[in-house]
Amino acid sequence: MVKHLDKKLNDLQKLFDLDFKNKNLLIRALTHSSYAYENNTLSNERLEFIGDAVLDLAVGRYLYDHIPESEGILTKKRAQEVCEDALVDYAKSFDLGQYLFLGKGEELSQGRSKPGILADAFEAFIGAIYIDRGIDETYKVLNKIVFPHVKKDLNKDDDDYKSKLQELVQSDKRTLKYEIVSEKGPAHDREFISRVYLDDYIIMGEGKGKTKKEAEQKAAFSALKKLAETDKEL
Amino acid sequence: MVKHLDKKLNDLQKLFDLDFKNKNLLIRALTHSSYAYENNTLSNERLEFIGDAVLDLAVGRYLYDHIPESEGILTKKRAQEVCEDALVDYAKSFDLGQYLFLGKGEELSQGRSKPGILADAFEAFIGAIYIDRGIDETYKVLNKIVFPHVKKDLNKDDDDYKSKLQELVQSDKRTLKYEIVSEKGPAHDREFISRVYLDDYIIMGEGKGKTKKEAEQKAAFSALKKLAETDKEL
Repeated sequence: MVKHLDKKLNDLQKLFDLDFKNKNLLIRALTHSSYAYENNTLSNERLEFIGDAVLDLAVGRYLYDHIPESEGILTKKRAQEVCEDALVDYAKSFDLGQYLFLGKGEELSQGRSKPGILADAFEAFIGAIYIDRGIDETYKVLNKIVFPHVKKDLNKDDDDYKSKLQELVQSDKRTLKYEIVSEKGPAHDREFISRVYLDDYIIMGEGKGKTKKEAEQKAAFSALKKLAETDKEL
Repeated sequence: MVKHLDKKLNDLQKLFDLDFKNKNLLIRALTHSSYAYENNTLSNERLEFIGDAVLDLAVGRYLYDHIPESEGILTKKRAQEVCEDALVDYAKSFDLGQYLFLGKGEELSQGRSKPGILADAFEAFIGAIYIDRGIDETYKVLNKIVFPHVKKDLNKDDDDYKSKLQELVQSDKRTLKYEIVSEKGPAHDREFISRVYLDDYIIMGEGKGKTKKEAEQKAAFSALKKLAETDKEL
């Protein structure tokens, strides 16, 4: 029984190349309150509290680094990536359910696949790694499980920044112009720099890319980022 | 003018022994949207989004480490420590207002002492340090400004853990007993270990202290922590 438990915990750690100093923290992360109650031990609820905050910060930072949107949009997009549905996806992606310690009642009523239980356990798992191994090790799980999911969602969004920027310009009064201001490097590794101007002379943004199109998208992205942060209208 | 700005930024950094790699991030943290709008630059709103998450995690972790309460109480106590009133206290403690860049209208209407502006700027300041210098440097500010405030509030709470534990025991049916199970070290540096038993034989918790009283309080604390996490009644 104990050997079986050790094997399970080791399997779980191996998935993410983790090595807990305090194995009890890992066990606690997997312990639903129903099991804790029946066995007079600690549940994963306090670790869930920590994991929730770790996810908010890490996903927030990821979005901050990757999209130019305003605080309001960042908040909205983060909520989508750490809502119960998303947490359940993360938990299911490595079958977290099979590792959980559940009370008898939950075991009988399919607790291992209940969304609430899985979502909480995923947060607690992240909280335990953060407390036992620190933030860098936590990123091992985030990089494998969470960020690919976030990235996919961002790609699904309309990421045509040139069109987005154009929409903001009152086209009857103002014009946007893109210019390639620099082009260098060998043919197989060319680098373009594009600048986007408003009314021919106001530099709105600049972007670098391996193609003209990519450089222009990046320039539009940088202009949108600036606009988002100043709340200006064009 | 520029020299004056440099001096101000250096003064602010010196307060917390900080040295920003990217001074623009610090400037941005201090830039209210009203100034950003008037001067076509970036406001502190996206940094505020990051700082908010940093504070949630850091204060959450502090509470997790220092009090034995359940997730619900941790959440409630954290909310008190990062609410607008608390953030304004943090900002005022080092006169953050004087460093802000405000638009003309805000300048004229006492923007420097508006709670909303100060609270947001404090979060943005934390966000900028986190992004530019990392979490360890962020703790320089938290250790000086935030955690002493949290600690003071925790001390204000009823921290008589023995009484709290006693309240949970149905005293007509069950008994609590404290026992000093170890006592060692020289007179000036004595260490006591106390154990608290339920009904004379169930070990509820154990605590270490420099006095018997402290050891017993710690034992009660550890029992409460366990109870909070299992949701058990006595």
